[in-house]
Amino acid sequence: MKKACIVSIGNELLSGTIVDTNTAWLCTKLMAMGIPVVAGYTLPDEIEHITRALKLAAKEADIIVITGGLGPTDDDLTRQAIAEVLVVKLVLVPEAVEELRRFFSDRGLTMPQRNMIQAYMPAGAQMLHNSLGTAPGVWWHEEGKVIVSMPGVPSEMMAMFEDSVKPRLKPLAGGQVIRTKRLHCFGAGESAIAEKLGDMMSRDRNPLINTTASVGLVTLYIVAMATDEKSADAMVEADDKMLHNLVGEYIYGRDGQTLAEVTGQTLARAGKTMAVAESCTGGLLAKMLTDVAGSSSYFMQGWVTYSNESKVRELCVPPELIEQHGAVSRQVAEAMAKAARKRAGTDFSVGITGIAGPDGGTAERPVGLVYISADSAEGTQTRECRFMGNREAVRLRAALTGLDMVRRKVRFD
Amino acid sequence: MKKACIVSIGNELLSGTIVDTNTAWLCTKLMAMGIPVVAGYTLPDEIEHITRALKLAAKEADIIVITGGLGPTDDDLTRQAIAEVLVVKLVLVPEAVEELRRFFSDRGLTMPQRNMIQAYMPAGAQMLHNSLGTAPGVWWHEEGKVIVSMPGVPSEMMAMFEDSVKPRLKPLAGGQVIRTKRLHCFGAGESAIAEKLGDMMSRDRNPLINTTASVGLVTLYIVAMATDEKSADAMVEADDKMLHNLVGEYIYGRDGQTLAEVTGQTLARAGKTMAVAESCTGGLLAKMLTDVAGSSSYFMQGWVTYSNESKVRELCVPPELIEQHGAVSRQVAEAMAKAARKRAGTDFSVGITGIAGPDGGTAERPVGLVYISADSAEGTQTRECRFMGNREAVRLRAALTGLDMVRRKVRFD
Repeated sequence: MKKACIVSIGNELLSGTIVDTNTAWLCTKLMAMGIPVVAGYTLPDEIEHITRALKLAAKEADIIVITGGLGPTDDDLTRQAIAEVLVVKLVLVPEAVEELRRFFSDRGLTMPQRNMIQAYMPAGAQMLHNSLGTAPGVWWHEEGKVIVSMPGVPSEMMAMFEDSVKPRLKPLAGGQVIRTKRLHCFGAGESAIAEKLGDMMSRDRNPLINTTASVGLVTLYIVAMATDEKSADAMVEADDKMLHNLVGEYIYGRDGQTLAEVTGQTLARAGKTMAVAESCTGGLLAKMLTDVAGSSSYFMQGWVTYSNESKVRELCVPPELIEQHGAVSRQVAEAMAKAARKRAGTDFSVGITGIAGPDGGTAERPVGLVYISADSAEGTQTRECRFMGNREAVRLRAALTGLDMVRRKVRFD
Repeated sequence: MKKACIVSIGNELLSGTIVDTNTAWLCTKLMAMGIPVVAGYTLPDEIEHITRALKLAAKEADIIVITGGLGPTDDDLTRQAIAEVLVVKLVLVPEAVEELRRFFSDRGLTMPQRNMIQAYMPAGAQMLHNSLGTAPGVWWHEEGKVIVSMPGVPSEMMAMFEDSVKPRLKPLAGGQVIRTKRLHCFGAGESAIAEKLGDMMSRDRNPLINTTASVGLVTLYIVAMATDEKSADAMVEADDKMLHNLVGEYIYGRDGQTLAEVTGQTLARAGKTMAVAESCTGGLLAKMLTDVAGSSSYFMQGWVTYSNESKVRELCVPPELIEQHGAVSRQVAEAMAKAARKRAGTDFSVGITGIAGPDGGTAERPVGLVYISADSAEGTQTRECRFMGNREAVRLRAALTGLDMVRRKVRFD
């Protein structure tokens, strides 16, 4: 199986001004072609750094995919570095000169002399057409080894990859196919889930099972390798089933799905609607629901009752309830959820009240204490949660919990 | 001058599922301390790859900053790789055991046995406290060489860097001083601003002026290099003044400030309050306002009136108005803003109605058309905007515009 290495070149990638999105995009594309990426290197516009990394990459991988450093200025050194590593000269490619001239003349301009340098290629390499900019790409291929160099501008790189690189790589990829699937979990931590998976997470297994965790959510990756697509798909499906057997109670979605999207789909399929009443999450839950296109078919309305007065005025929470139990209490969360459902005339609703911090906590009611209530005609469930983390994490965990409670309620009510 | 190398570990970074934002963040932070980053390596969860990269990084840099691979599962190999490169054993650190136990007991849980592995550190290393998760960090320092290892989850990494890594790195940085300042602009595009800056943006200037653009916002970076802090600070301040002279009308804040935060501070200083009524932004504006700790002193309440019925029922928008002008109209935005201010009893309010897409647009009312109204006792301003971009971008631009309108209204009313 061919392996790839990605080399990203540019000072701006190491000064913090730009987040490199090219690597992730290329990884997805190469993976789907059955070419795993074994490493990524990010380098400044300095020739020694670039050549050193290219030499290392050549040891680790058969295919080196370079982005950046193809511009017309003195700090664009990729062409030179490739020539140095291949121990060849840079030669002027007439086809590239033509293409550069055309790029400028199409725009009613004369090509600046400076751009001529972009028509030089390492001897033995082919130029790759750039449909969106001046920098032609570089393709070098010998005895199963490939060096390909594309511009760093994402749109130019993507177009060049799809048009010129993918078709050239395809016949080389040969044999192996990689299929991946992601399963998203809520309601259990990474280690608790890993515990339940046991041997499935061993490093030399195929499919390989990985886990990652972000705030409140755990994602399981199934990565299957096989000689044909059908077998790879079958392996993924078999593991999907196994994972559902082991930790299915936590799995809410797969691949690009979000919890808000899945909750919305569950509501839409059941022909049901919902509303929300938020205090500490301050609109976050409504925002997550309405991030989803088409959410207006099931999400009707939200209240952000941040002040106590607004809880009383808009949601008719009895002032005595707030006085007796506090605004952050099981009773107030329930009253908010019930009022939201009634006023909005929806099937389901969520009420959230809590202390997101950093201030406002006491020994009795610490930062992170949140009451979340889900209401429907079948009854009300309320959870008392003590979330860890900063303000952002507390708010996110609270909103996710509200979504998950509705999702389960719609399914099991 | 000390140089740094960043090593990012995790299969998810090479499968294309996650874009690595940690590297750019760390580069900014290290740059500001006078520590340039000479390379970045992205590696899979495989011990040979990790150790090979660590050895290479040790040749190129004095400071190796690692993120990822500190979790409790078998694919978390960073601790092991560091020990291998340093040729030491992993030893159990009682302080880390204690911290892990406390993390779980604080949540009323027992620590799974599996997490114990996170308390092992390479002999000679110190543990770094993780305020937001279970994975403790690793700090190793000998004869001016540093290896520091932090979790891959961005929030945990950032907190650990600020709390524990920065103070430890500071005395080692020495020599050149780099000072940076960011100025955030709203209301003009990147090229329009660059045009106004002219020569200030030349590449060999010190301070260097960079710009970056994200949805609707442009940030100017002032990066000054000097031999002492006082000179560097003076250079930054001089440029700050020059930039304010040239594009001051667009600048709303600096460094870590957000537009929501600045708007909130402007309200708080004036002793004023606000409320919001949102349709297409669906809670996003309220969410952004309440992202800010202490926002309860000026943000009272929000309505997410997503359905037409809720606009009529909750905000008393006359049904005739919706029938005559459509829910997405100047008239409805104004009615929403006015009703929100009246009902909530606040000094200011925002009403937003529009078409976020991807569906729901017509030739007359295309996707991206948003009406934003800001109301106060002094009167109502309404803007008709045609935002470019996808659903997320349209919603974000609309919410930012609402914030900026209130900010200016509070200052100039």
